[in-house]
This record gives sequence, C-alpha cells and structure tokens, in this order.
Amino acid sequence: MTATRVERLHVDGITTPESNFPSASRAGDFVYVSGQVSEDANGVVAPGDMGAQTTQAIARLTTVLAACNGTLADVVSATVFLTDVTLAADFNAAWRSAFGDNRPSRATVIAPLLAPEFLVEVQAVAYIPEARG
Amino acid sequence: MTATRVERLHVDGITTPESNFPSASRAGDFVYVSGQVSEDANGVVAPGDMGAQTTQAIARLTTVLAACNGTLADVVSATVFLTDVTLAADFNAAWRSAFGDNRPSRATVIAPLLAPEFLVEVQAVAYIPEARG
Amino acid sequence: MTATRVERLHVDGITTPESNFPSASRAGDFVYVSGQVSEDANGVVAPGDMGAQTTQAIARLTTVLAACNGTLADVVSATVFLTDVTLAADFNAAWRSAFGDNRPSRATVIAPLLAPEFLVEVQAVAYIPEARG
Repeated sequence: MTATRVERLHVDGITTPESNFPSASRAGDFVYVSGQVSEDANGVVAPGDMGAQTTQAIARLTTVLAACNGTLADVVSATVFLTDVTLAADFNAAWRSAFGDNRPSRATVIAPLLAPEFLVEVQAVAYIPEARG
Repeated sequence: MTATRVERLHVDGITTPESNFPSASRAGDFVYVSGQVSEDANGVVAPGDMGAQTTQAIARLTTVLAACNGTLADVVSATVFLTDVTLAADFNAAWRSAFGDNRPSRATVIAPLLAPEFLVEVQAVAYIPEARG
Repeated sequence: MTATRVERLHVDGITTPESNFPSASRAGDFVYVSGQVSEDANGVVAPGDMGAQTTQAIARLTTVLAACNGTLADVVSATVFLTDVTLAADFNAAWRSAFGDNRPSRATVIAPLLAPEFLVEVQAVAYIPEARG
C-alpha cells in the first residue's frame, strides 16, 4: 500500500542523517533525488574535467536509484546546472554515454555551484512505482 | 492501466530520437517537458526579443502538451531561467498573455543558457491523467 | 476522489488572482509551491541577512502548505537559488533550524533573482495525499 507520508532515504556513501539533505525522498510512485555532484568519500572527483565529473555525478545518482530498486531508465526528468558553457559538449557526451538510448527529459542552464571545485550538479526525479513489483 | 515505466516522447519539430533529451517523459499522471527555448526548424526565433522568445518557447511547450492530449491549462509548475533581469517585464507580459487566467506555479531566476542567442528557457511539469479520458 | 485537473491556490498574504503565478498548484497527491522569497505585505524582509531571509521564505512556504493541509514535513524536494555563495553557511543553518530532522531532498545553486533585494528563492514540491484524511 502506498505510504501517505514522504520517506527519507540516506544511501551509504552519499548522505548521512547529519547531512543537510537526504539522498532521496520517496513520495508515492516518485523518487526525488537530491542534486548530485562529482565527489566520493575523499572529496571532489576529477577536478577540472567536465566529462569525468558528469560520469561520477551520474554514478552517484545510479547508486541512489539502486537503493530505491530503480535504475537510470527510471529517471523521468533532470535539471542540470553547469558552471561553464564552454564545457557543454563534454557534459553531453558523458550524459549520452551514461543514459544510453533512454535519456530523460532535461533542462540545462549555467549556474555556479556551492563549491567551486564542482562543474556540474544533476537534480533528478524518478518514477519507481511500488506496484511494479 | 497506468504504465509502470517512463515513456519517452519525441514530438515532430521539437526533438528526434537523436536529440540529447526527449520532448517529454510521461510518468503515471504526470508529463515532464524538457526545457523549451525560442527556436524552430531554422534555428533561433526572435533574437534579442524577450517577449517574442517567451511566446515561441511557450508555443513549443503547447505543441508538446498537445501530443500528450494536454494544453497549457494542464501545466502544474514551471521553472523559468531568464538571461537578463532587465527583460523580466517583457517576459511576464508574454507569459500572462499565453497562459491567460490559468497560470501555473512558477520559480523564476536569472541564468545563462547553453546558447547565447536564447533569452529564456521554460521547464514545465504537467498533470494529464489518463483517467481524464 | 482525485481531481483530474490542476487546482490553483491563492493564499492570503502570498498571492492574489492578479499575481503572475499562484501560491501553489495541486495535481493529484502533489502540491507544487511557487518560488518563495523573503517578503511580506510591506515588501522585502531582512535585507542583506541571508539567515533571516531563509527563515522568512520558509515561513511563507509553511503558510502555503498549511492552506493545503500540509506542513514542512510534507516537502518532498526543494530547489534553492542563492545569490551569494559566501552566505551558504547562513542559509544552511536557517534551513536546518526550520526543517528540523525531516529535511527534504534538495539541489542548491547560485543564481541572481528577479529583484536584487532577495538573497534566496525556495521552490518546493510537497506530497499531501487527499487519502491521508
């Protein structure tokens, strides 16, 4: 039966209960994933490399979705913030490589992020109905 | 019966399967439309004219919604990115003209877009239940 | 029974039918709240103070949710636009104070807003099923 309250999810290696936000929040059949950047337990991954940062941010998104029994194919829509328009081609190449032929709806704009080391942040909404079984 | 997988939609004149993203993605009763800018088959429409670019971006949104059996009245929420705050009045006038008295929820911020010719990008979520018939 | 059309909501003190957008739009079990900034009936609240502006923007979000029989605990996800990265710590402190231990998914980027007096805009999606009763 569908929960009538939002469920918060902290995925190992992504967030902890002390983080400013959860890895994701489930509401009905939808999973809203917090903005993912290119980091790991040691800090920023691939400084200065937009393609590799995109790949890593999507890898983290994949990890969060897996914890919700989902995959990248379940991503409905993404809002992407890039820090440097001249790196958009590198971003798009990594994006297409990660999502393959099942790419989500997307809006893509230029904006600085909270830490200057990160070149891209990916916010995503996924559709992972519990009824799928 | 509601599909348990996301459906991707490519609308003629908007995107093709080779595009970096689909025109829209359907998930349950919701349709997530990719960010729309002022373009057509020949490229940018109305360079330098925020009002006309807003009108054209919304026209493209309308085209995508029509392919989903929806209209602008079904838009729940829009996230709007403007490149120039001094053109906000022109944007708002065109916005009100297009949506009439049934205007969606909205957040509106300033951000550069992927191509400098575009002055506005509109990302929208619509509610088009299949049960509406 | 769930409505098959979007419902627009104007909350007293937040928006009027003449506003460019409603306070919120309900679609099925979801409520999409328009971007909230630090204002009241007299104009901008707490100019120059990121912490106080965050608190006021969230207070307005709380008011809108209350009109939908919801609370901050129902916020699934927020997209936050800050105008100044050097004030992010003040923002986060006020955010944690307002949401307590039930913080929503979040993406946070830097972007100028429509009026220069505002330091933060908060766009939120809430899950408030009518079936909750």
